[in-house]
Amino acid sequence: MSEAVGTVHHGVHVFPVRVYYEDTDAAGVVYYANYLKFAERARTDLLRVLGIEQSYLAGEAGLVFVVRRCAADFLRPARLDDGLEIHTGVTDVKGASVDVSQSVRRNGDELVRMEVRIACMKRADPGRPARIPQGIRAAFEAWRDAS
Amino acid sequence: MSEAVGTVHHGVHVFPVRVYYEDTDAAGVVYYANYLKFAERARTDLLRVLGIEQSYLAGEAGLVFVVRRCAADFLRPARLDDGLEIHTGVTDVKGASVDVSQSVRRNGDELVRMEVRIACMKRADPGRPARIPQGIRAAFEAWRDAS
Amino acid sequence: MSEAVGTVHHGVHVFPVRVYYEDTDAAGVVYYANYLKFAERARTDLLRVLGIEQSYLAGEAGLVFVVRRCAADFLRPARLDDGLEIHTGVTDVKGASVDVSQSVRRNGDELVRMEVRIACMKRADPGRPARIPQGIRAAFEAWRDAS
Amino acid sequence: MSEAVGTVHHGVHVFPVRVYYEDTDAAGVVYYANYLKFAERARTDLLRVLGIEQSYLAGEAGLVFVVRRCAADFLRPARLDDGLEIHTGVTDVKGASVDVSQSVRRNGDELVRMEVRIACMKRADPGRPARIPQGIRAAFEAWRDAS
Repeated sequence: MSEAVGTVHHGVHVFPVRVYYEDTDAAGVVYYANYLKFAERARTDLLRVLGIEQSYLAGEAGLVFVVRRCAADFLRPARLDDGLEIHTGVTDVKGASVDVSQSVRRNGDELVRMEVRIACMKRADPGRPARIPQGIRAAFEAWRDAS
Repeated sequence: MSEAVGTVHHGVHVFPVRVYYEDTDAAGVVYYANYLKFAERARTDLLRVLGIEQSYLAGEAGLVFVVRRCAADFLRPARLDDGLEIHTGVTDVKGASVDVSQSVRRNGDELVRMEVRIACMKRADPGRPARIPQGIRAAFEAWRDAS
Repeated sequence: MSEAVGTVHHGVHVFPVRVYYEDTDAAGVVYYANYLKFAERARTDLLRVLGIEQSYLAGEAGLVFVVRRCAADFLRPARLDDGLEIHTGVTDVKGASVDVSQSVRRNGDELVRMEVRIACMKRADPGRPARIPQGIRAAFEAWRDAS
Repeated sequence: MSEAVGTVHHGVHVFPVRVYYEDTDAAGVVYYANYLKFAERARTDLLRVLGIEQSYLAGEAGLVFVVRRCAADFLRPARLDDGLEIHTGVTDVKGASVDVSQSVRRNGDELVRMEVRIACMKRADPGRPARIPQGIRAAFEAWRDAS
Protein backbone atom coordinates (compact mmCIF):
# COMPACT_ATOMS: atom_id res chain seq x y z
CA MET A 1 0.00 0.00 0.00
CA SER A 2 1.47 3.30 -1.11
CA GLU A 3 1.62 6.23 1.25
CA ALA A 4 -0.81 9.12 0.74
CA VAL A 5 0.81 12.55 0.46
CA GLY A 6 -2.25 14.73 0.98
CA THR A 7 -3.39 15.98 4.38
CA VAL A 8 -6.86 16.22 5.88
CA HIS A 9 -8.38 19.25 7.59
CA HIS A 10 -12.00 19.06 8.83
CA GLY A 11 -13.05 16.54 6.19
CA VAL A 12 -11.29 18.34 3.36
CA HIS A 13 -8.41 16.56 1.63
CA VAL A 14 -5.60 18.96 0.66
CA PHE A 15 -3.16 17.78 -2.03
CA PRO A 16 -0.12 19.71 -3.27
CA VAL A 17 0.64 20.08 -6.98
CA ARG A 18 3.60 21.85 -8.53
CA VAL A 19 3.21 23.33 -12.03
CA TYR A 20 5.87 22.13 -14.50
CA TYR A 21 6.49 23.03 -18.16
CA GLU A 22 4.49 19.97 -19.23
CA ASP A 23 1.37 21.50 -17.63
CA THR A 24 1.56 24.88 -19.36
CA ASP A 25 0.81 25.99 -22.92
CA ALA A 26 1.86 28.72 -25.34
CA ALA A 27 -0.54 31.18 -23.70
CA GLY A 28 1.81 31.00 -20.69
CA VAL A 29 -0.73 29.39 -18.37
CA VAL A 30 -1.78 25.88 -17.33
CA TYR A 31 -3.64 24.17 -20.21
CA TYR A 32 -7.28 23.74 -19.19
CA ALA A 33 -7.46 19.96 -19.46
CA ASN A 34 -4.49 19.58 -17.14
CA TYR A 35 -6.46 20.80 -14.13
CA LEU A 36 -8.48 17.62 -14.58
CA LYS A 37 -5.23 15.65 -14.24
CA PHE A 38 -4.41 17.48 -11.02
CA ALA A 39 -7.90 16.77 -9.73
CA GLU A 40 -7.58 13.08 -10.55
CA ARG A 41 -4.24 12.85 -8.73
CA ALA A 42 -5.93 14.37 -5.68
CA ARG A 43 -8.86 11.94 -5.85
CA THR A 44 -6.47 9.00 -6.16
CA ASP A 45 -4.63 10.24 -3.09
CA LEU A 46 -7.92 10.70 -1.24
CA LEU A 47 -8.76 7.06 -2.01
CA ARG A 48 -5.39 6.16 -0.56
CA VAL A 49 -6.20 8.11 2.62
CA LEU A 50 -9.39 6.01 2.80
CA GLY A 51 -7.30 2.87 2.41
CA ILE A 52 -8.22 2.16 -1.21
CA GLU A 53 -5.56 1.46 -3.85
CA GLN A 54 -7.01 1.61 -7.36
CA SER A 55 -4.58 -0.89 -8.88
CA TYR A 56 -5.65 -3.41 -6.18
CA LEU A 57 -9.32 -2.58 -6.74
CA ALA A 58 -8.99 -3.14 -10.49
CA GLY A 59 -7.08 -6.40 -10.07
CA GLU A 60 -8.85 -8.09 -7.15
CA ALA A 61 -12.39 -6.75 -7.25
CA GLY A 62 -12.42 -6.00 -10.98
CA LEU A 63 -13.77 -2.53 -10.25
CA VAL A 64 -12.75 0.88 -11.56
CA PHE A 65 -13.85 4.35 -10.55
CA VAL A 66 -14.70 6.33 -13.66
CA VAL A 67 -15.58 10.01 -14.02
CA ARG A 68 -19.19 10.16 -15.20
CA ARG A 69 -19.63 13.92 -15.14
CA CYS A 70 -17.35 16.88 -14.59
CA ALA A 71 -18.16 20.59 -14.51
CA ALA A 72 -15.27 23.02 -14.15
CA ASP A 73 -15.15 26.81 -13.75
CA PHE A 74 -11.80 28.28 -14.72
CA LEU A 75 -11.60 31.49 -12.66
CA ARG A 76 -7.94 32.51 -12.73
CA PRO A 77 -4.94 31.00 -14.52
CA ALA A 78 -2.11 29.10 -12.83
CA ARG A 79 1.43 29.56 -14.14
CA LEU A 80 4.80 27.83 -14.36
CA ASP A 81 6.37 27.01 -10.97
CA ASP A 82 3.15 27.77 -9.07
CA GLY A 83 2.59 25.69 -5.96
CA LEU A 84 -1.08 24.71 -5.96
CA GLU A 85 -3.36 22.96 -3.53
CA ILE A 86 -6.26 20.74 -4.60
CA HIS A 87 -9.01 20.75 -1.98
CA THR A 88 -11.44 17.83 -2.19
CA GLY A 89 -14.61 17.19 -0.22
CA VAL A 90 -17.26 14.46 -0.62
CA THR A 91 -20.71 15.96 -1.19
CA ASP A 92 -22.94 12.95 -1.94
CA VAL A 93 -22.70 9.15 -1.81
CA LYS A 94 -25.07 6.91 -3.80
CA GLY A 95 -25.12 3.17 -4.42
CA ALA A 96 -22.93 3.26 -7.52
CA SER A 97 -21.52 6.81 -7.53
CA VAL A 98 -19.91 9.48 -5.38
CA ASP A 99 -20.03 13.26 -5.90
CA VAL A 100 -17.00 15.29 -4.95
CA SER A 101 -16.34 19.01 -4.94
CA GLN A 102 -12.80 20.07 -5.84
CA SER A 103 -11.04 23.40 -5.78
CA VAL A 104 -7.63 24.35 -7.17
CA ARG A 105 -6.08 27.04 -4.98
CA ARG A 106 -2.96 29.18 -4.89
CA ASN A 107 -2.19 31.04 -1.69
CA GLY A 108 -5.83 30.79 -0.68
CA ASP A 109 -7.20 32.11 -4.01
CA GLU A 110 -9.52 29.78 -5.88
CA LEU A 111 -8.35 29.27 -9.47
CA VAL A 112 -10.60 26.42 -10.61
CA ARG A 113 -13.77 24.99 -9.08
CA MET A 114 -14.89 21.50 -10.10
CA GLU A 115 -17.90 19.30 -9.41
CA VAL A 116 -17.19 15.68 -10.28
CA ARG A 117 -19.37 12.57 -10.29
CA ILE A 118 -17.40 9.33 -10.01
CA ALA A 119 -19.13 6.08 -10.88
CA CYS A 120 -18.07 2.58 -9.90
CA MET A 121 -17.90 0.23 -12.87
CA LYS A 122 -16.89 -3.31 -13.68
CA ARG A 123 -13.48 -3.21 -15.31
CA ALA A 124 -14.53 -5.85 -17.81
CA ASP A 125 -17.59 -3.85 -18.83
CA PRO A 126 -16.92 -0.13 -18.54
CA GLY A 127 -20.04 1.92 -19.13
CA ARG A 128 -22.18 -0.29 -16.90
CA PRO A 129 -22.47 0.79 -13.22
CA ALA A 130 -21.53 -1.50 -10.35
CA ARG A 131 -22.37 -1.14 -6.64
CA ILE A 132 -19.61 0.38 -4.56
CA PRO A 133 -18.37 -2.29 -2.10
CA GLN A 134 -19.88 -1.72 1.35
CA GLY A 135 -16.61 -0.95 3.14
CA ILE A 136 -15.62 1.65 0.58
CA ARG A 137 -19.08 3.19 0.60
CA ALA A 138 -18.95 3.50 4.40
CA ALA A 139 -15.58 5.24 4.14
CA PHE A 140 -17.00 7.77 1.66
CA GLU A 141 -20.04 8.36 3.88
CA ALA A 142 -17.89 9.00 6.93
CA TRP A 143 -15.85 11.41 4.85
CA ARG A 144 -18.98 13.22 3.62
CA ASP A 145 -20.27 13.56 7.20
CA ALA A 146 -16.95 15.08 8.29
CA SER A 147 -17.00 17.65 5.45
CA MET B 1 -3.10 30.50 -43.04
CA SER B 2 -3.34 26.79 -42.30
CA GLU B 3 -5.97 24.66 -43.90
CA ALA B 4 -8.91 23.48 -41.82
CA VAL B 5 -9.50 19.70 -41.82
CA GLY B 6 -13.02 19.60 -40.41
CA THR B 7 -16.13 19.69 -42.55
CA VAL B 8 -19.39 21.55 -42.07
CA HIS B 9 -22.91 20.12 -42.29
CA HIS B 10 -25.90 22.40 -41.56
CA GLY B 11 -23.96 24.64 -39.18
CA VAL B 12 -22.30 21.74 -37.36
CA HIS B 13 -18.51 21.42 -37.60
CA VAL B 14 -17.39 17.79 -37.81
CA PHE B 15 -13.75 17.07 -36.93
CA PRO B 16 -12.07 13.64 -37.10
CA VAL B 17 -9.89 12.35 -34.23
CA ARG B 18 -8.03 9.06 -34.13
CA VAL B 19 -7.32 7.48 -30.70
CA TYR B 20 -3.63 6.68 -30.14
CA TYR B 21 -1.85 5.03 -27.19
CA GLU B 22 -1.06 8.49 -25.75
CA ASP B 23 -4.80 9.10 -25.31
CA THR B 24 -5.59 5.91 -23.40
CA ASP B 25 -4.94 4.83 -19.82
CA ALA B 26 -4.44 1.62 -17.88
CA ALA B 27 -8.21 1.10 -17.67
CA GLY B 28 -8.01 0.47 -21.44
CA VAL B 29 -10.06 3.52 -22.40
CA VAL B 30 -9.45 7.17 -23.31
CA TYR B 31 -8.36 9.13 -20.21
CA TYR B 32 -11.14 11.56 -19.32
CA ALA B 33 -9.11 14.78 -19.58
CA ASN B 34 -8.05 13.88 -23.12
CA TYR B 35 -11.56 14.38 -24.50
CA LEU B 36 -11.02 18.05 -23.62
CA LYS B 37 -7.92 18.01 -25.82
CA PHE B 38 -9.94 16.53 -28.69
CA ALA B 39 -12.61 19.21 -28.17
CA GLU B 40 -10.03 21.99 -28.21
CA ARG B 41 -8.51 20.68 -31.45
CA ALA B 42 -12.01 20.80 -32.98
CA ARG B 43 -12.64 24.36 -31.74
CA THR B 44 -9.29 25.49 -33.14
CA ASP B 45 -10.22 23.96 -36.48
CA LEU B 46 -13.64 25.62 -36.33
CA LEU B 47 -11.90 28.99 -35.83
CA ARG B 48 -9.83 28.17 -38.91
CA VAL B 49 -13.02 27.47 -40.88
CA LEU B 50 -14.19 30.93 -39.77
CA GLY B 51 -10.88 32.37 -40.99
CA ILE B 52 -9.33 32.89 -37.54
CA GLU B 53 -5.82 31.64 -36.75
CA GLN B 54 -5.12 31.73 -33.02
CA SER B 55 -1.39 32.30 -33.32
CA TYR B 56 -2.15 35.38 -35.49
CA LEU B 57 -4.80 36.56 -33.05
CA ALA B 58 -2.40 36.27 -30.10
CA GLY B 59 0.41 38.02 -31.94
CA GLU B 60 -1.36 40.83 -33.79
CA ALA B 61 -4.44 41.58 -31.74
CA GLY B 62 -2.99 40.39 -28.42
CA LEU B 63 -6.13 38.32 -27.81
CA VAL B 64 -6.58 34.73 -26.66
CA PHE B 65 -9.69 32.57 -26.43
CA VAL B 66 -9.76 30.89 -23.06
CA VAL B 67 -12.12 28.22 -21.73
CA ARG B 68 -14.09 29.85 -18.91
CA ARG B 69 -16.43 26.95 -18.15
CA CYS B 70 -16.70 23.36 -19.28
CA ALA B 71 -19.26 20.71 -18.36
CA ALA B 72 -18.75 17.21 -19.71
CA ASP B 73 -20.88 14.05 -19.53
CA PHE B 74 -18.88 10.90 -20.16
CA LEU B 75 -21.48 8.45 -21.50
CA ARG B 76 -19.46 5.63 -23.11
CA PRO B 77 -15.72 5.04 -23.31
CA ALA B 78 -13.62 5.39 -26.47
CA ARG B 79 -10.79 2.91 -27.06
CA LEU B 80 -7.45 2.53 -28.82
CA ASP B 81 -7.64 2.92 -32.62
CA ASP B 82 -11.19 4.29 -32.52
CA GLY B 83 -12.03 6.82 -35.20
CA LEU B 84 -14.04 9.56 -33.51
CA GLU B 85 -15.89 12.62 -34.72
CA ILE B 86 -16.16 15.83 -32.72
CA HIS B 87 -19.36 17.69 -33.58
CA THR B 88 -19.36 21.39 -32.63
CA GLY B 89 -22.17 23.93 -32.83
CA VAL B 90 -22.32 27.53 -31.60
CA THR B 91 -25.21 28.02 -29.16
CA ASP B 92 -24.76 31.59 -27.88
CA VAL B 93 -22.65 34.66 -28.70
CA LYS B 94 -22.08 37.46 -26.18
CA GLY B 95 -19.83 40.51 -26.24
CA ALA B 96 -16.84 38.78 -24.66
CA SER B 97 -17.74 35.08 -24.80
CA VAL B 98 -19.12 32.32 -26.99
CA ASP B 99 -20.96 29.17 -25.91
CA VAL B 100 -20.43 26.02 -27.91
CA SER B 101 -21.95 22.57 -27.66
CA GLN B 102 -19.67 19.66 -28.51
CA SER B 103 -20.24 15.96 -28.92
CA VAL B 104 -17.73 13.14 -29.26
CA ARG B 105 -19.19 10.42 -31.49
CA ARG B 106 -18.22 6.99 -32.79
CA ASN B 107 -20.28 5.55 -35.63
CA GLY B 108 -23.15 7.85 -34.68
CA ASP B 109 -23.13 6.95 -30.96
CA GLU B 110 -22.55 9.84 -28.58
CA LEU B 111 -19.67 9.07 -26.18
CA VAL B 112 -19.13 12.46 -24.53
CA ARG B 113 -21.32 15.56 -24.48
CA MET B 114 -19.73 18.90 -23.60
CA GLU B 115 -20.97 22.45 -23.05
CA VAL B 116 -18.12 24.95 -23.23
CA ARG B 117 -17.96 28.70 -22.61
CA ILE B 118 -15.03 30.39 -24.34
CA ALA B 119 -14.04 33.89 -23.24
CA CYS B 120 -11.96 36.39 -25.16
CA MET B 121 -9.11 37.80 -23.06
CA LYS B 122 -6.13 40.07 -23.46
CA ARG B 123 -3.04 37.93 -23.76
CA ALA B 124 -1.09 40.29 -21.52
CA ASP B 125 -3.71 40.09 -18.81
CA PRO B 126 -5.39 36.68 -18.82
CA GLY B 127 -8.32 36.55 -16.42
CA ARG B 128 -9.73 39.88 -17.62
CA PRO B 129 -12.35 39.70 -20.41
CA ALA B 130 -11.92 41.55 -23.68
CA ARG B 131 -14.54 42.27 -26.36
CA ILE B 132 -14.51 39.88 -29.29
CA PRO B 133 -13.47 41.84 -32.44
CA GLN B 134 -16.53 42.71 -34.52
CA GLY B 135 -15.57 40.62 -37.56
CA ILE B 136 -15.02 37.51 -35.47
CA ARG B 137 -18.23 38.08 -33.53
CA ALA B 138 -20.18 38.35 -36.76
CA ALA B 139 -18.67 35.08 -37.95
CA PHE B 140 -19.76 33.34 -34.73
CA GLU B 141 -23.25 34.80 -35.01
CA ALA B 142 -23.61 33.62 -38.59
CA TRP B 143 -22.48 30.19 -37.44
CA ARG B 144 -24.96 30.16 -34.58
CA ASP B 145 -27.81 31.12 -36.92
CA ALA B 146 -26.87 28.27 -39.26
CA SER B 147 -26.87 25.70 -36.43
CA MET C 1 -9.61 -1.92 -40.09
CA SER C 2 -9.09 1.83 -39.80
CA GLU C 3 -7.86 3.86 -42.72
CA ALA C 4 -4.27 5.11 -42.70
CA VAL C 5 -3.84 8.85 -43.25
CA GLY C 6 -0.14 8.97 -44.03
CA THR C 7 1.27 8.69 -47.53
CA VAL C 8 4.27 6.80 -48.84
CA HIS C 9 7.04 8.18 -51.07
CA HIS C 10 9.95 5.91 -52.02
CA GLY C 11 9.73 3.83 -48.84
CA VAL C 12 9.29 6.82 -46.56
CA HIS C 13 6.04 7.18 -44.68
CA VAL C 14 4.93 10.83 -44.41
CA PHE C 15 2.41 11.65 -41.70
CA PRO C 16 0.86 15.11 -41.09
CA VAL C 17 0.61 16.56 -37.56
CA ARG C 18 -0.93 19.89 -36.63
CA VAL C 19 0.38 21.65 -33.47
CA TYR C 20 -2.37 22.55 -30.99
CA TYR C 21 -2.24 24.40 -27.65
CA GLU C 22 -2.02 21.02 -25.83
CA ASP C 23 1.35 20.38 -27.52
CA THR C 24 3.01 23.65 -26.54
CA ASP C 25 4.44 24.92 -23.28
CA ALA C 26 5.07 28.25 -21.56
CA ALA C 27 8.30 28.72 -23.55
CA GLY C 28 6.01 29.14 -26.59
CA VAL C 29 7.22 26.00 -28.36
CA VAL C 30 6.27 22.32 -28.56
CA TYR C 31 7.14 20.56 -25.29
CA TYR C 32 9.98 18.13 -25.98
CA ALA C 33 8.21 14.94 -24.89
CA ASN C 34 5.33 15.67 -27.26
CA TYR C 35 7.47 15.03 -30.33
CA LEU C 36 7.59 11.42 -29.10
CA LYS C 37 3.79 11.40 -29.19
CA PHE C 38 3.83 12.67 -32.78
CA ALA C 39 6.38 9.99 -33.68
CA GLU C 40 4.25 7.27 -32.13
CA ARG C 41 1.17 8.41 -34.05
CA ALA C 42 3.21 8.17 -37.25
CA ARG C 43 4.49 4.67 -36.38
CA THR C 44 0.93 3.52 -35.62
CA ASP C 45 -0.18 4.86 -38.97
CA LEU C 46 2.75 3.16 -40.67
CA LEU C 47 1.65 -0.15 -39.10
CA ARG C 48 -1.79 0.55 -40.55
CA VAL C 49 -0.26 1.07 -43.99
CA LEU C 50 1.38 -2.34 -43.52
CA GLY C 51 -2.01 -3.79 -42.63
CA ILE C 52 -1.37 -4.09 -38.87
CA GLU C 53 -3.88 -2.73 -36.33
CA GLN C 54 -2.36 -2.61 -32.86
CA SER C 55 -5.62 -3.12 -30.98
CA TYR C 56 -6.16 -6.32 -33.01
CA LEU C 57 -2.56 -7.41 -32.42
CA ALA C 58 -2.92 -6.92 -28.66
CA GLY C 59 -6.26 -8.72 -28.51
CA GLU C 60 -5.77 -11.66 -30.89
CA ALA C 61 -2.07 -12.34 -30.84
CA GLY C 62 -1.42 -10.96 -27.36
CA LEU C 63 1.48 -8.92 -28.73
CA VAL C 64 2.44 -5.29 -28.23
CA PHE C 65 5.11 -3.19 -29.90
CA VAL C 66 7.05 -1.33 -27.22
CA VAL C 67 9.71 1.35 -27.61
CA ARG C 68 12.94 -0.13 -26.30
CA ARG C 69 15.26 2.74 -27.12
CA CYS C 70 14.80 6.27 -28.41
CA ALA C 71 17.40 8.93 -29.22
CA ALA C 72 16.15 12.36 -30.25
CA ASP C 73 17.97 15.48 -31.45
CA PHE C 74 15.92 18.63 -31.03
CA LEU C 75 17.27 20.96 -33.71
CA ARG C 76 14.66 23.71 -34.07
CA PRO C 77 11.44 24.36 -32.17
CA ALA C 78 7.94 23.89 -33.60
CA ARG C 79 5.23 26.36 -32.63
CA LEU C 80 1.47 26.71 -32.25
CA ASP C 81 -0.50 26.10 -35.48
CA ASP C 82 2.53 24.69 -37.30
CA GLY C 83 1.75 22.03 -39.86
CA LEU C 84 4.40 19.32 -39.42
CA GLU C 85 5.31 16.18 -41.29
CA ILE C 86 6.71 13.07 -39.63
CA HIS C 87 8.91 11.10 -42.03
CA THR C 88 9.50 7.47 -41.05
CA GLY C 89 11.78 4.89 -42.63
CA VAL C 90 12.64 1.36 -41.52
CA THR C 91 16.40 0.93 -41.06
CA ASP C 92 16.78 -2.55 -39.56
CA VAL C 93 14.63 -5.61 -38.90
CA LYS C 94 15.62 -8.27 -36.36
CA GLY C 95 13.74 -11.26 -34.95
CA ALA C 96 12.14 -9.40 -32.09
CA SER C 97 12.75 -5.75 -32.90
CA VAL C 98 12.62 -3.13 -35.65
CA ASP C 99 14.70 0.05 -35.95
CA VAL C 100 13.11 3.10 -37.48
CA SER C 101 14.45 6.53 -38.30
CA GLN C 102 12.04 9.41 -37.88
CA SER C 103 12.24 13.07 -38.75
CA VAL C 104 9.90 15.90 -37.79
CA ARG C 105 9.82 18.49 -40.58
CA ARG C 106 8.23 21.85 -41.31
CA ASN C 107 8.33 23.12 -44.89
CA GLY C 108 11.28 20.83 -45.59
CA ASP C 109 13.33 21.93 -42.54
CA GLU C 110 14.22 19.18 -40.10
CA LEU C 111 13.16 20.11 -36.54
CA VAL C 112 13.70 16.82 -34.69
CA ARG C 113 15.60 13.68 -35.70
CA MET C 114 14.82 10.42 -33.91
CA GLU C 115 16.21 6.90 -33.94
CA VAL C 116 13.79 4.44 -32.38
CA ARG C 117 14.04 0.73 -31.58
CA ILE C 118 10.69 -0.99 -31.26
CA ALA C 119 10.53 -4.40 -29.62
CA CYS C 120 7.78 -6.96 -29.90
CA MET C 121 6.61 -8.22 -26.51
CA LYS C 122 3.94 -10.45 -25.05
CA ARG C 123 1.18 -8.26 -23.70
CA ALA C 124 0.85 -10.47 -20.62
CA ASP C 125 4.56 -10.17 -19.85
CA PRO C 126 5.90 -6.79 -20.97
CA GLY C 127 9.64 -6.59 -20.64
CA ARG C 128 10.18 -9.99 -22.25
CA PRO C 129 10.79 -10.03 -26.02
CA ALA C 130 8.64 -12.05 -28.40
CA ARG C 131 9.33 -12.94 -32.02
CA ILE C 132 7.63 -10.72 -34.55
CA PRO C 133 5.04 -12.82 -36.44
CA GLN C 134 6.42 -13.85 -39.85
CA GLY C 135 3.91 -11.90 -41.96
CA ILE C 136 4.57 -8.70 -40.09
CA ARG C 137 8.32 -9.21 -40.23
CA ALA C 138 8.16 -9.67 -43.98
CA ALA C 139 6.17 -6.44 -44.32
CA PHE C 140 8.84 -4.56 -42.35
CA GLU C 141 11.61 -6.10 -44.46
CA ALA C 142 9.89 -5.12 -47.68
CA TRP C 143 9.54 -1.60 -46.26
CA ARG C 144 13.20 -1.46 -45.29
CA ASP C 145 14.25 -2.59 -48.77
CA ALA C 146 12.15 0.15 -50.35
CA SER C 147 13.68 2.86 -48.13
CA MET D 1 11.28 30.89 -4.36
CA SER D 2 9.54 27.55 -4.28
CA GLU D 3 10.77 24.72 -2.11
CA ALA D 4 12.56 21.82 -3.74
CA VAL D 5 11.13 18.39 -2.90
CA GLY D 6 14.02 16.19 -4.04
CA THR D 7 16.85 15.13 -1.82
CA VAL D 8 20.56 14.91 -2.49
CA HIS D 9 22.85 11.93 -1.78
CA HIS D 10 26.52 12.15 -2.79
CA GLY D 11 25.89 14.51 -5.69
CA VAL D 12 22.86 12.59 -6.96
CA HIS D 13 19.50 14.31 -6.87
CA VAL D 14 16.68 11.91 -5.98
CA PHE D 15 13.15 12.98 -6.89
CA PRO D 16 9.95 11.02 -6.10
CA VAL D 17 7.26 10.49 -8.74
CA ARG D 18 3.97 8.67 -8.26
CA VAL D 19 2.35 6.99 -11.30
CA TYR D 20 -1.25 8.11 -11.91
CA TYR D 21 -3.81 7.03 -14.53
CA GLU D 22 -2.79 10.01 -16.72
CA ASP D 23 0.71 8.50 -17.05
CA THR D 24 -0.37 5.05 -18.20
CA ASP D 25 -1.70 3.73 -21.50
CA ALA D 26 -3.89 0.91 -22.75
CA ALA D 27 -0.94 -1.52 -22.61
CA GLY D 28 -1.22 -1.15 -18.81
CA VAL D 29 2.17 0.55 -18.40
CA VAL D 30 3.58 4.09 -18.32
CA TYR D 31 3.47 5.62 -21.84
CA TYR D 32 7.04 6.05 -23.05
CA ALA D 33 6.98 9.82 -23.59
CA ASN D 34 5.80 10.36 -20.01
CA TYR D 35 9.15 9.26 -18.57
CA LEU D 36 10.53 12.40 -20.24
CA LYS D 37 7.99 14.42 -18.26
CA PHE D 38 9.13 12.76 -15.04
CA ALA D 39 12.76 13.51 -15.95
CA GLU D 40 11.96 17.16 -16.66
CA ARG D 41 10.20 17.52 -13.29
CA ALA D 42 13.33 16.16 -11.63
CA ARG D 43 15.61 18.52 -13.55
CA THR D 44 13.42 21.50 -12.61
CA ASP D 45 13.62 20.43 -8.98
CA LEU D 46 17.39 20.03 -9.27
CA LEU D 47 17.58 23.61 -10.57
CA ARG D 48 15.58 24.63 -7.51
CA VAL D 49 18.07 22.83 -5.26
CA LEU D 50 20.78 24.88 -7.00
CA GLY D 51 18.78 28.04 -6.30
CA ILE D 52 17.49 28.53 -9.86
CA GLU D 53 13.80 29.15 -10.55
CA GLN D 54 13.03 28.80 -14.28
CA SER D 55 10.13 31.26 -14.30
CA TYR D 56 12.48 33.89 -12.79
CA LEU D 57 15.22 32.98 -15.27
CA ALA D 58 12.85 33.36 -18.22
CA GLY D 59 11.45 36.66 -16.96
CA GLU D 60 14.53 38.46 -15.62
CA ALA D 61 17.41 37.05 -17.65
CA GLY D 62 15.37 36.11 -20.71
CA LEU D 63 16.95 32.65 -20.68
CA VAL D 64 15.44 29.21 -21.02
CA PHE D 65 16.98 25.77 -20.62
CA VAL D 66 15.97 23.61 -23.56
CA VAL D 67 16.57 19.91 -24.15
CA ARG D 68 18.92 19.64 -27.12
CA ARG D 69 19.40 15.88 -27.12
CA CYS D 70 17.86 12.98 -25.25
CA ALA D 71 18.63 9.27 -25.44
CA ALA D 72 16.47 6.91 -23.41
CA ASP D 73 16.67 3.16 -22.78
CA PHE D 74 13.38 1.68 -21.65
CA LEU D 75 14.40 -1.40 -19.67
CA ARG D 76 11.36 -2.36 -17.62
CA PRO D 77 7.83 -0.90 -17.52
CA ALA D 78 6.41 1.12 -14.62
CA ARG D 79 2.76 0.65 -13.71
CA LEU D 80 -0.20 2.42 -12.11
CA ASP D 81 0.39 3.45 -8.47
CA ASP D 82 4.12 2.73 -8.64
CA GLY D 83 6.30 4.95 -6.49
CA LEU D 84 9.32 5.87 -8.62
CA GLU D 85 12.55 7.72 -7.97
CA ILE D 86 14.30 9.84 -10.59
CA HIS D 87 18.08 9.92 -9.95
CA THR D 88 19.90 12.80 -11.65
CA GLY D 89 23.61 13.51 -11.83
CA VAL D 90 25.53 16.17 -13.76
CA THR D 91 28.10 14.59 -16.09
CA ASP D 92 29.47 17.52 -18.12
CA VAL D 93 29.29 21.33 -18.08
CA LYS D 94 30.09 23.42 -21.15
CA GLY D 95 29.72 27.13 -21.91
CA ALA D 96 26.18 26.88 -23.24
CA SER D 97 25.08 23.38 -22.28
CA VAL D 98 24.97 20.84 -19.47
CA ASP D 99 24.85 17.05 -19.75
CA VAL D 100 22.91 15.10 -17.17
CA SER D 101 22.43 11.40 -16.60
CA GLN D 102 19.03 10.34 -15.31
CA SER D 103 17.67 7.05 -14.10
CA VAL D 104 14.08 6.07 -13.29
CA ARG D 105 14.05 3.52 -10.48
CA ARG D 106 11.55 1.44 -8.54
CA ASN D 107 12.73 -0.23 -5.36
CA GLY D 108 16.31 0.01 -6.58
CA ASP D 109 15.61 -1.50 -10.03
CA GLU D 110 16.46 0.70 -13.00
CA LEU D 111 13.46 1.03 -15.33
CA VAL D 112 14.64 3.78 -17.68
CA ARG D 113 18.10 5.23 -18.27
CA MET D 114 18.41 8.64 -19.92
CA GLU D 115 21.25 10.85 -21.14
CA VAL D 116 20.11 14.43 -21.65
CA ARG D 117 21.86 17.51 -23.05
CA ILE D 118 20.32 20.78 -21.89
CA ALA D 119 21.19 23.96 -23.76
CA CYS D 120 20.83 27.51 -22.52
CA MET D 121 18.97 29.70 -25.03
CA LYS D 122 17.60 33.21 -25.28
CA ARG D 123 13.86 33.06 -24.71
CA ALA D 124 13.28 35.55 -27.51
CA ASP D 125 15.28 33.46 -29.97
CA PRO D 126 14.97 29.76 -29.17
CA GLY D 127 17.27 27.67 -31.32
CA ARG D 128 20.25 29.97 -30.75
CA PRO D 129 22.56 29.07 -27.84
CA ALA D 130 23.36 31.51 -25.04
CA ARG D 131 26.11 31.34 -22.43
CA ILE D 132 25.02 29.97 -19.08
CA PRO D 133 25.30 32.79 -16.50
CA GLN D 134 28.50 32.39 -14.46
CA GLY D 135 26.80 31.80 -11.10
CA ILE D 136 24.61 29.06 -12.53
CA ARG D 137 27.52 27.46 -14.37
CA ALA D 138 29.54 27.35 -11.15
CA ALA D 139 26.62 25.68 -9.38
CA PHE D 140 26.46 22.99 -12.09
CA GLU D 141 30.24 22.46 -11.92
CA ALA D 142 30.16 22.05 -8.16
CA TRP D 143 27.35 19.54 -8.63
CA ARG D 144 29.27 17.63 -11.29
CA ASP D 145 32.36 17.48 -9.03
CA ALA D 146 30.25 16.07 -6.20
CA SER D 147 28.76 13.35 -8.43
